[in-house]
Amino acid sequence: MNGQLRDDVVAIAGNARQQFYDARGYGTPTGGNHIEVSRVEAAHLLFRGDLESVVDSDGSHLDFEAFFVSSASAVDRFGLRFLVYAELRDRGFYLSPAREGWPGEDTNEWTDLTVYPRGTKPGDGEPAHRIVVVGERTPIPAATLREVTLAVVDEESEITYLETGMPTFDGGSTYQPPASVTGSLIDDRVVVWESPDGFFDHGFYGQPLTAREAVLDNAVQLSLVEAAGLAVEDHLSLTDEDRLAAEAICERGRAVEGERFDRRLAVYRALRSQQVVPKTGYKFGADFRTYNTVASVDDLSHSECLVRVVDADHTFDPRELSLDVRLAGGVRKRMVFALTGANGNIEWLTVSRLTP
Amino acid sequence: MNGQLRDDVVAIAGNARQQFYDARGYGTPTGGNHIEVSRVEAAHLLFRGDLESVVDSDGSHLDFEAFFVSSASAVDRFGLRFLVYAELRDRGFYLSPAREGWPGEDTNEWTDLTVYPRGTKPGDGEPAHRIVVVGERTPIPAATLREVTLAVVDEESEITYLETGMPTFDGGSTYQPPASVTGSLIDDRVVVWESPDGFFDHGFYGQPLTAREAVLDNAVQLSLVEAAGLAVEDHLSLTDEDRLAAEAICERGRAVEGERFDRRLAVYRALRSQQVVPKTGYKFGADFRTYNTVASVDDLSHSECLVRVVDADHTFDPRELSLDVRLAGGVRKRMVFALTGANGNIEWLTVSRLTP
Repeated sequence: MNGQLRDDVVAIAGNARQQFYDARGYGTPTGGNHIEVSRVEAAHLLFRGDLESVVDSDGSHLDFEAFFVSSASAVDRFGLRFLVYAELRDRGFYLSPAREGWPGEDTNEWTDLTVYPRGTKPGDGEPAHRIVVVGERTPIPAATLREVTLAVVDEESEITYLETGMPTFDGGSTYQPPASVTGSLIDDRVVVWESPDGFFDHGFYGQPLTAREAVLDNAVQLSLVEAAGLAVEDHLSLTDEDRLAAEAICERGRAVEGERFDRRLAVYRALRSQQVVPKTGYKFGADFRTYNTVASVDDLSHSECLVRVVDADHTFDPRELSLDVRLAGGVRKRMVFALTGANGNIEWLTVSRLTP
Repeated sequence: MNGQLRDDVVAIAGNARQQFYDARGYGTPTGGNHIEVSRVEAAHLLFRGDLESVVDSDGSHLDFEAFFVSSASAVDRFGLRFLVYAELRDRGFYLSPAREGWPGEDTNEWTDLTVYPRGTKPGDGEPAHRIVVVGERTPIPAATLREVTLAVVDEESEITYLETGMPTFDGGSTYQPPASVTGSLIDDRVVVWESPDGFFDHGFYGQPLTAREAVLDNAVQLSLVEAAGLAVEDHLSLTDEDRLAAEAICERGRAVEGERFDRRLAVYRALRSQQVVPKTGYKFGADFRTYNTVASVDDLSHSECLVRVVDADHTFDPRELSLDVRLAGGVRKRMVFALTGANGNIEWLTVSRLTP
């Protein structure tokens, strides 16, 4: 059986509807027993030997190789779409190109492929996945990552699926610091020489100033973002400073981190306001790791999330995204991105690996 | 007992040599029973209550807090050095500030602290570690990372030790591709429609073009860097191309990756020339993962290293370094950096976490 190339679809006559659409979910019916399939679907049918050739407008008969090469120059990311289409087919899914008038059509302008739940046919019920196909070098604007599944094709044509969603935090850390904490701003941290009871042990603020046999039992060092979070809420003042603590600390923060400091502070405060405790994520290469419920530092469970703070209009590099998501998965935490505007407005995004 | 501040050292009289230097490895002897200690050491003695105060040039008696604050404005990274010094002391090590004329002096201009093997005293034998102290925001020029141990103090004052060294590769992958491979350059990969025997199975070149029931059994896709590596050695030619394959592929590589492509190709070729097989490291956020010995892809052991290609004059961000090293450790691979000049010259560097 042959197909006929018309613009960017391939028309198939004969008993194509029954053989390809009804039985196996290829294409969209066009009346009678005829169907149209997308170039990706046609390539797959050629690849499997279900079509012999596609006839182009010159009347040339194209085999798989010739049709693949010609489609690659006609269609954006054709090779990548084909790989993802073929792999999902091999995994037993039906799927359609996401385009107007086709089965499973949706309104997300970024979607490339619509995948149906296993055992269901195109257009029956809600799609299982809305797939955006990207290469490993394709920059990914954060705005595209809403309720889609990314299929990232790496340079050796292996595919990683990344699922995106909205995180929820379930905070239950109820410690409230007193209003009377004082400290010294020293370089890029604040030392609280006499910290109040529970400040570190229950509030998990700062880090004790080293452990053994010291003359100061309660000295605690705060990071700049912890100190700023406290100072902005009037819980912290500085010795040797005429200015307001919040002003002096934020100025120091901007001096060492630039405007990123304000974004990180906004995220820190948003988490604390939900009774979630953010601590540094440095060891994981992230901005924060988070604890939903800290009752006592002596009895701490593992942190649940890693949070990376990025600009609201951030563009992800797929390789960096892969690194973050892989690391978070390896330590059984959720990877969360805080897309943070200069005004402090935050949109949250989780990204995790998926095996369809 | 008090110390006397003189320039940037603190002189201690009485029986200081016996009490602090001989018994516990602080400072350097200056004649009789007198010693000089660095500011960091003096702060540690104050912190432990072994010194009561340090008397400054005005005759003021400074306690730990006052001496710490004054030293922080006088000495570069004083707070960080103190934290690392105190933590290593707590772990049972003797250590000295690395400076001319002091015990364990060394010639590496970057070293901050010299740490002696457990159970040995300052100046006895070779140091166990030469420590460079950095904050988590300090950019680290790659050139500083030669036979040193980085102590990275994160924003919450936790310390990560990173050991650096030279990797050796123990390659034993002996497959040689034939001279006759041909392919099509399609977007950012090369498809070899009919690959020779063993090309994928033994040489681990490319990736089969999807698995099941296909009309083409031996079609393999190569990444651009794999294809360029083959083309430069005259193993690959392109259909539909008048130019030399190497030229066309490298041009495409530069179009999608910029000048990084040439560096990555240099590293790829250097590894293959040592009979090591580099494959994409995308899933780990790296440039390559490497296999020392590939006999057959069906019987592949885990890859041993992750390789990231960076410029010869690269400056590391400690947070990115932490992310890479953490991820590599989590998957039991060595993290290797290939510092690669524009001329293709490569210096190799391993970085791994260390618990002193």
